[in-house]
Amino acid sequence: MERKTKVHAEEGKHDVVITREFDLPVELLFKAHMEPEIFEQWMTHDYGTVKVLKFENKKHGGWQFQNADPNGNVVFRANGVFHEVIPNQKIIRTFEMEGSPLEVQLEFLEFEKLTDDTSRLRMHSIYRTPELRDQLLKQPFAAGLNMAHNRLQNVLSKLK
Amino acid sequence: MERKTKVHAEEGKHDVVITREFDLPVELLFKAHMEPEIFEQWMTHDYGTVKVLKFENKKHGGWQFQNADPNGNVVFRANGVFHEVIPNQKIIRTFEMEGSPLEVQLEFLEFEKLTDDTSRLRMHSIYRTPELRDQLLKQPFAAGLNMAHNRLQNVLSKLK
Repeated sequence: MERKTKVHAEEGKHDVVITREFDLPVELLFKAHMEPEIFEQWMTHDYGTVKVLKFENKKHGGWQFQNADPNGNVVFRANGVFHEVIPNQKIIRTFEMEGSPLEVQLEFLEFEKLTDDTSRLRMHSIYRTPELRDQLLKQPFAAGLNMAHNRLQNVLSKLK
Repeated sequence: MERKTKVHAEEGKHDVVITREFDLPVELLFKAHMEPEIFEQWMTHDYGTVKVLKFENKKHGGWQFQNADPNGNVVFRANGVFHEVIPNQKIIRTFEMEGSPLEVQLEFLEFEKLTDDTSRLRMHSIYRTPELRDQLLKQPFAAGLNMAHNRLQNVLSKLK
C-alpha cells in the first residue's frame, strides 16, 4: 500500500522534506504537535509508550520526551527547543535524539488549511551534514513516520 | 591584511564553517559568548551599540539582542535558543536575524584549548537552503565577523 506520508531528499543536500495530508482541520493538526497529552497518544504504539517530560509550548520553550518499552525500560529520549511558534501555521524547533550520532536537527513545520476538514503538514528537516541525513534515510524512518501519522489521523479523528 | 577569521563554504551545501584562533584562554573565549555584559562589549562598534534584551545562558534558554545606531534607532534585532551548552566546549544554538530573508540558522560552536593562553573557535552554521547561505555570503559577512572577532580579542585581553 502506498504510504500517505511522502519523504523527499535530494542527493548531496542537508535536508529532508516530509509532506502529509490529513482529514483533519488545521487547528487539530497543530494541536497534535503542541499539546503534550495528544502528542503522547499518537506517538505511543504497541512497542513503545511515549511520555512527555517537559513541554513549554511557546516561543523559546524547551521540550523533552521519552519512549519506554512494555517493561518500562527507556528506549530513547529526545529533546529540543521551540525557536518559533505561530498557532495553526508554523513551528520552528530543534530536534535531538539523545545519544544518537545524527546530532541536532533544525525543523520547520508548516501547517496549511486545505478545506475546513482537511490540512497539509510540511516538515523540512535540516541536518548538520548530508552524510548524517543519509544515515537517517537508511533507517526505517519513512515507514515509522507514516505509521505515526496514521495514528495521528486516528487519534485526532476521535476529537473532531 | 589577511583576515584572521577564516570562512569556508562548499558549493551546493547548506553550511558555512568559520574558524578563528585567539590569544585567549578557552575559558575567556567561552565567556565572551555566554556572558551578556562581555558579549555587548565586543559586539558594539562605532556605528552600532549592542544591548542584550534576554539571555538565559543555559540549555533550552532563549536569547535576544538589538543593535542601535548612534541616535538610538534600532537597526536590527536577533534572537534564538540554546539547544545545548557545555562550558568551555560547545554551544548549539539557533540564530535568527529578525526580519531578514535568511530564515533561522542552526549553529554549532566548538571551543578548543590550544595552550593555556590560546584557543580556537569553530562555528558551523547550517542554513535552511544553499541559496539562503549564498545570499549571506554575498554580504560583507566575513569582513564583519573578522572585525567583531578582533574586538573580542581586544576586549577580552583586558580581562586576562
